[in-house]
Amino acid sequence: MINKVFSAEQLDDKDPLAHKAGAFSLPDNTIYLDGNSLGPLPKSAEKRAVEVVQEQWGQGLITSWNKHQWISLPQQVGDKIGELIGAQQGQVICCDSISINLFKVLSAALKMNPRRKVIATTRDNFPTDIYMVQGLLDLLGEEYSIRYVDEASISSQLTDDIAVLMLTQVNFRSGLKLDMKGITEQAHAKGILTLWDLAHSAGAFPVCLDDCNVDFAVGCSYKYLNGGPGAPAFIYVARRHQDSYQQPLSGWMGHSAPFSFSPDYAPDSSVKQNLCGTPGVIGMSILDAALDVFDDVSLKAIDEKSKKLQAFFIAEAKRAGVLEHFGVASPPINCRGSQLALAHDEAYAICQAWIAEGVIADFRAPNILRIGFAPLYLSFADVEKAVTRLAIIMNEKRYENATFQQRQSVT
Amino acid sequence: MINKVFSAEQLDDKDPLAHKAGAFSLPDNTIYLDGNSLGPLPKSAEKRAVEVVQEQWGQGLITSWNKHQWISLPQQVGDKIGELIGAQQGQVICCDSISINLFKVLSAALKMNPRRKVIATTRDNFPTDIYMVQGLLDLLGEEYSIRYVDEASISSQLTDDIAVLMLTQVNFRSGLKLDMKGITEQAHAKGILTLWDLAHSAGAFPVCLDDCNVDFAVGCSYKYLNGGPGAPAFIYVARRHQDSYQQPLSGWMGHSAPFSFSPDYAPDSSVKQNLCGTPGVIGMSILDAALDVFDDVSLKAIDEKSKKLQAFFIAEAKRAGVLEHFGVASPPINCRGSQLALAHDEAYAICQAWIAEGVIADFRAPNILRIGFAPLYLSFADVEKAVTRLAIIMNEKRYENATFQQRQSVT
Repeated sequence: MINKVFSAEQLDDKDPLAHKAGAFSLPDNTIYLDGNSLGPLPKSAEKRAVEVVQEQWGQGLITSWNKHQWISLPQQVGDKIGELIGAQQGQVICCDSISINLFKVLSAALKMNPRRKVIATTRDNFPTDIYMVQGLLDLLGEEYSIRYVDEASISSQLTDDIAVLMLTQVNFRSGLKLDMKGITEQAHAKGILTLWDLAHSAGAFPVCLDDCNVDFAVGCSYKYLNGGPGAPAFIYVARRHQDSYQQPLSGWMGHSAPFSFSPDYAPDSSVKQNLCGTPGVIGMSILDAALDVFDDVSLKAIDEKSKKLQAFFIAEAKRAGVLEHFGVASPPINCRGSQLALAHDEAYAICQAWIAEGVIADFRAPNILRIGFAPLYLSFADVEKAVTRLAIIMNEKRYENATFQQRQSVT
Repeated sequence: MINKVFSAEQLDDKDPLAHKAGAFSLPDNTIYLDGNSLGPLPKSAEKRAVEVVQEQWGQGLITSWNKHQWISLPQQVGDKIGELIGAQQGQVICCDSISINLFKVLSAALKMNPRRKVIATTRDNFPTDIYMVQGLLDLLGEEYSIRYVDEASISSQLTDDIAVLMLTQVNFRSGLKLDMKGITEQAHAKGILTLWDLAHSAGAFPVCLDDCNVDFAVGCSYKYLNGGPGAPAFIYVARRHQDSYQQPLSGWMGHSAPFSFSPDYAPDSSVKQNLCGTPGVIGMSILDAALDVFDDVSLKAIDEKSKKLQAFFIAEAKRAGVLEHFGVASPPINCRGSQLALAHDEAYAICQAWIAEGVIADFRAPNILRIGFAPLYLSFADVEKAVTRLAIIMNEKRYENATFQQRQSVT
């Protein structure tokens, strides 16, 4: 815990990541606690956006597929992400969306564990993860089924009829962080393949896919990786599975020789097989540049600062009497990701009132004020101000008469 | 046929589309005959790229999902594309890639025609179209199959065991343009659903999906629609099918209420159901602006100019003795799209030599020099120069000693 004798200023002074905020183009007078929905604009990405559009596309036209190596972007970006999630080269590729990537991996995993017909996941997983299973099962027929396991005791529910266990490492609502290593090990002991969704993990804290012996993972790049709105997602396929892996969205870019235009599909033998159609070069180039922000920082340092920011938020919130108004819907700091969930029946209106005061957080149905802590651009002074403004809103009940339009936010 | 008494200058003078080249940022000293691989950069798109990155993402952050209506971009862009392909509002949506969209539509179509188990297509269809069928069939099991029909006599091969007929309107290699209305009618007479790939059609000439009573269509936006490298694709679902349509890539954005985070998937009842994961906002915004180029021109005018450009090319090529060196691998001008295929054993080296002279065309295995005519930015003077340079290359056999690196181009 942060001792209250340290002021925000003192904490910022000794913050080894303080300089990184300068790597982002942030709006004035805004405290951003929603980097876990959409990360802000890195200056490197801003520069690359102009470059890829004006020079590479505008001047290079079709020749840029080679000249500017658009053709190898998915692997290049994949390997950059791989470094941030504990994956050796050649196991991560950047492509499509998490939803589509889940479909690929789940289909492939079922084929690799053919005697089993159950996909297990948590009821409180992010909806699209569950929806994608439902869509796949609908296609495959009644032989297959989904089984919901309780997030609080996953290991005890692992049975030998489960083909694949699909989990999101950090719960999108509560922030609960699952024990990747332990659960993966227990799943393997029962012959179950594991698929981890890293949406709220990648770029937020050290993830160790190789060390945890994970089979497959997916994740998005528009949250803590700051890749931009709807930036492309990624897939991890552990090297040991790449030979037998075969996913059904067999587009030409996943072919072993896409430009031979051969009549029959022959999958690439690497993680590249997960490519399907022509990749979105502009979005992927912007992401490529955005990832450079991580060049000179460690995920360990990011994680440490996140914990300090969160502890400071809670200490300040307690001192200002803010926490009396909320239930804490997150587990303790060592068991959660880089976010805090506060429960209140008026959470939606409170969130909107906070936004009106220049503090952007997020609301999650039914009653959660979700606060994201992204250490690359958030200062302790920001946190202090955010708490002060929330205290005023709560003490003066400013949210009560607010008429805010419902905002659709994209997690 | 163009009478040779008209010079390129005279033809350009009376070209009603001549002013449109000013809407593009084109490189100097380049004649671009590859807009059917990747359209060039519209100035409107260049401007929007800066806006969406710097202002909407950089300054607006997460609030831009509403403030700048990112959330409705897929429908907005879909309807804009709809206007160019003869589809009334509410039937086209912008999303993902052609490959992924084919998977969605094929799966849905098989469900809608449940007693039939055959997908028919042409052997010479673009490879990814065929690969996607192969991937789907592999997932569905042996009950289903693909059947190849001969492009030259499709109607006579339509039998009542075919569930869906998947055709690309314009052959990517030869440019052969199929009779959409006639084939669709004949397919319907046999109870077959039709799926048309408009990759080389949209933006090139009038397409009349509604009038042709087409069931489904897909297409990409980076060719004649000039949406940028890997720009998102689109899907058309005829309104009469939307109630019974259900596709398996059931991501949260296709849910009837994505932000309710309800536990079970409930598809949107409109074409919006085809959305899956979070859309790539930057690429889609750029495409949205790129489409503004079509605001003040008709597809009819574009088609007319294309035919004149092609006829002028052929007349000039004949006059310069170029055609003696090639076989013409395209059908007559009224039976093909906005492209011309010339066959030569050294087509690859010839293409590279032409590029070295500032004329960008494309090579398609095994022996095709593929020449695209995009009337919005191509002048008759460009065509004249292109032919002159090709004549020198052929007459002097400049391609013979060329050592060009194989270029991977993305069709």
